[in-house]
Amino acid sequence: MDNKGYDFGMIGLGVMGRNFILNVLDHGFSAAGLDLDAEKAAALKKEGEGKPVMSTTDTATFVKALAQPRKIMLLVPAGKAVDSVIESLLPHLDNKDLIIDGGNSYFPDTDRRFEQLKAKGIRFMGMGVSGGAEGARRGPSIMPGGAPEAYQLVAPILEAVAAKAKGEPCVAHLGNGAAGHYVKMVHNGIEYGLMQLLAEAYDILKNAGKLDNPALHEAFKKWNEGALESYLVEITSKIFAQPDDQGEGWLVDKILDKAKQKGTGKWTSQNAMDLGIPVPTIDAAVTMRGLSALKAERTATAPRYSRSIESYPAVDQGQLVSQVGEALHFAFMITYAQGMHLLAEASREYHFDLNLQTVAKIWRGGCIIRAEILEDMRQAYQQEPELNNLVRSPLFQSSLLYGQRGARSVIQTAAQFGIPTLALSSTLNYFDAYRDERLPLNLVQAQRDFFGSHTYERTDREGVFHTAWE
Amino acid sequence: MDNKGYDFGMIGLGVMGRNFILNVLDHGFSAAGLDLDAEKAAALKKEGEGKPVMSTTDTATFVKALAQPRKIMLLVPAGKAVDSVIESLLPHLDNKDLIIDGGNSYFPDTDRRFEQLKAKGIRFMGMGVSGGAEGARRGPSIMPGGAPEAYQLVAPILEAVAAKAKGEPCVAHLGNGAAGHYVKMVHNGIEYGLMQLLAEAYDILKNAGKLDNPALHEAFKKWNEGALESYLVEITSKIFAQPDDQGEGWLVDKILDKAKQKGTGKWTSQNAMDLGIPVPTIDAAVTMRGLSALKAERTATAPRYSRSIESYPAVDQGQLVSQVGEALHFAFMITYAQGMHLLAEASREYHFDLNLQTVAKIWRGGCIIRAEILEDMRQAYQQEPELNNLVRSPLFQSSLLYGQRGARSVIQTAAQFGIPTLALSSTLNYFDAYRDERLPLNLVQAQRDFFGSHTYERTDREGVFHTAWE
Repeated sequence: MDNKGYDFGMIGLGVMGRNFILNVLDHGFSAAGLDLDAEKAAALKKEGEGKPVMSTTDTATFVKALAQPRKIMLLVPAGKAVDSVIESLLPHLDNKDLIIDGGNSYFPDTDRRFEQLKAKGIRFMGMGVSGGAEGARRGPSIMPGGAPEAYQLVAPILEAVAAKAKGEPCVAHLGNGAAGHYVKMVHNGIEYGLMQLLAEAYDILKNAGKLDNPALHEAFKKWNEGALESYLVEITSKIFAQPDDQGEGWLVDKILDKAKQKGTGKWTSQNAMDLGIPVPTIDAAVTMRGLSALKAERTATAPRYSRSIESYPAVDQGQLVSQVGEALHFAFMITYAQGMHLLAEASREYHFDLNLQTVAKIWRGGCIIRAEILEDMRQAYQQEPELNNLVRSPLFQSSLLYGQRGARSVIQTAAQFGIPTLALSSTLNYFDAYRDERLPLNLVQAQRDFFGSHTYERTDREGVFHTAWE
Repeated sequence: MDNKGYDFGMIGLGVMGRNFILNVLDHGFSAAGLDLDAEKAAALKKEGEGKPVMSTTDTATFVKALAQPRKIMLLVPAGKAVDSVIESLLPHLDNKDLIIDGGNSYFPDTDRRFEQLKAKGIRFMGMGVSGGAEGARRGPSIMPGGAPEAYQLVAPILEAVAAKAKGEPCVAHLGNGAAGHYVKMVHNGIEYGLMQLLAEAYDILKNAGKLDNPALHEAFKKWNEGALESYLVEITSKIFAQPDDQGEGWLVDKILDKAKQKGTGKWTSQNAMDLGIPVPTIDAAVTMRGLSALKAERTATAPRYSRSIESYPAVDQGQLVSQVGEALHFAFMITYAQGMHLLAEASREYHFDLNLQTVAKIWRGGCIIRAEILEDMRQAYQQEPELNNLVRSPLFQSSLLYGQRGARSVIQTAAQFGIPTLALSSTLNYFDAYRDERLPLNLVQAQRDFFGSHTYERTDREGVFHTAWE
């Protein structure tokens, strides 16, 4: 640091916060850390030994140590903790200091905080950060939103610490207001969808295909060398190769099938419903986390409805692996398409002014949903900046036409075997509906008019009609 | 009316409001109506000629005409209209008068209004009413919530006007606070699910089975004489027999496939996500209404992904109708089960103190989702009042085991033909997951621990674990 103070401040010195600071230090910036937990503050001091870093448990000391205008990032749990940290900072801040909320805050909260702080002359930025602890240390994908001039204050630091994909930093000013947290929310919604699809692929290969963990490891590893190349497929292949660290056998078999959630997937689905944009693969992932949590109910229900998979004919393992791979590639593309469709609509509705090519670009590296597919997505938006749904891109067309075949086969097998594939089924049904010029919802409108006189439109003339049904 | 004033007051004299009043008059009560629209007030005067009824466009006149404590029901659009009507009434009311909101209000609004009015000494009741215009006239299903003593004030009138099923009125005090509007919201969520399932059955029979409208009419009519007997199946059969009143052919073919929605289905899905209760059939129905509204996008996308159903082999019509009928019965039962599961959890979470047998009982007649199945449901809750999910009832077991076969066949056909069946697929997948003791979400927990150190539980010992994944 020079004598003006530290370049960057971080509040919340858990693994993510400390790693983010170490990453900042790696790039020649100085940094200060604050945590009320003395152990965490001490851990940063130790990990950053010999670097221009200080840490403290005292807010006043922390704020005074920073160069002005101060750049203070928060990595604390979303919700009330963010408000109380901001509250505790305010008496110490000066006009034009910048607070960056780097957690998974709910985007309406970000809008509210932005307005509250604006009234006090304090800059505020909601910023999504993805990549987990390792990403924070080596290069995350960073999704900042808010005022462009606030972004300019921290751009040199963020662009240095971000992951690089094809030589470009995985960070950019995404848009107005809560755009950063909104994009991160949808990123996580897509993440939920992809993870559930991978879980269903695992279930089918294991229970219909009888693949053991080494064979599962090989299948996912091979997929990760092709069109499915992605961080989530990569770690999935590694998971199947992880021995149990508490006993015999493979760890994956010992893990309880109750999945937790922190809300970002749920918010994505709920907000998509408010905007009228269908994201059924993400809905399915949220639903399946809910169903997984009902472990006691499932265990009590299972004996009443035994599925006796054992009685089904053996399936051809090689063919099944190939079909599941096609299905996954198809479903991954559709899941991204649903998320981007939601972003396109949200950008209009909330005036974020998002550039979807930029979003695809900064997701190519560092984040949990990074994947080879994202470069195709970037190109699709480069070709057609106004594209609202990737399903309609010529760059996606042949892959989707090809991949749907695998999805159809896998769904038929799963329906026969009684293996739940809510996400994969929802994905195929979304595709089949989105390309359907004539859905049967004319019947729904007829029913609504029949029982509630809600009226309907016609295919052959303008207007609004009501019939006295007999 | 006697000289104390009119027994019952109604604000909002649209078809529903006028019909409800005429129903009240039929049962020997007197009633007053208020609407700012003079035409509607005049229409009530005319329709109620010779009966003890008055109507007016003036709030003070209306309120003064009512016997005390006044019983004033609102049938106005949900949202701000309810608040402004209440606001306009307040200066004229006396302590202990009762306002009943009979619209489809969002349940948190009902809680808020209850508290606001309580502070002013005015009683308030949120009450769902289902049955459409015809139901209001001849006997709706009525779902009141709030304070029991408020219900007692209007019980004689409500029990007289409600539909009767097996000799019992389809109304009962359901529970505390916003219980009435919550139950009505879930009623509508179930309604969304059933309607979407019927639309998918129609799509498959029409496009895979090549049934024409007369054949569709016959199929639904026959189903309505068996286990599927229900109001929605009945009107669906009639819809296929309705000639176009604007030209040649059948009306259903001329209706535009864009379905509208007023929010109750969406609220059900969003709230179910908040409570962690899976209702994927209802989610699917909400999603499909959204997809139906994207008519222009679908029309533009269709040519890129032609589904060429014509090239598939002909299916056996009789067999398909039989499979679709089984699938529908299965899916109807599961849809009710999802809704009731949500009610069970909401009752705990919001302290509604619902009796689910009572809910099933008052849905047996008058409402849009009335069906033969509801008597089975009532019996299931009579046997096991604490039952949280009907899937676990012995009374549902054999029907579900039977019906799942049809659902599996239909889904395989639909996946092959490219016909979207989001609701039916979601229903079967829900069943397959709910009876699955071991879901593949252990992989999701492994992934979460791998990239985010979110920890996991184990199947073989207590505790919370984290692995340094390789």
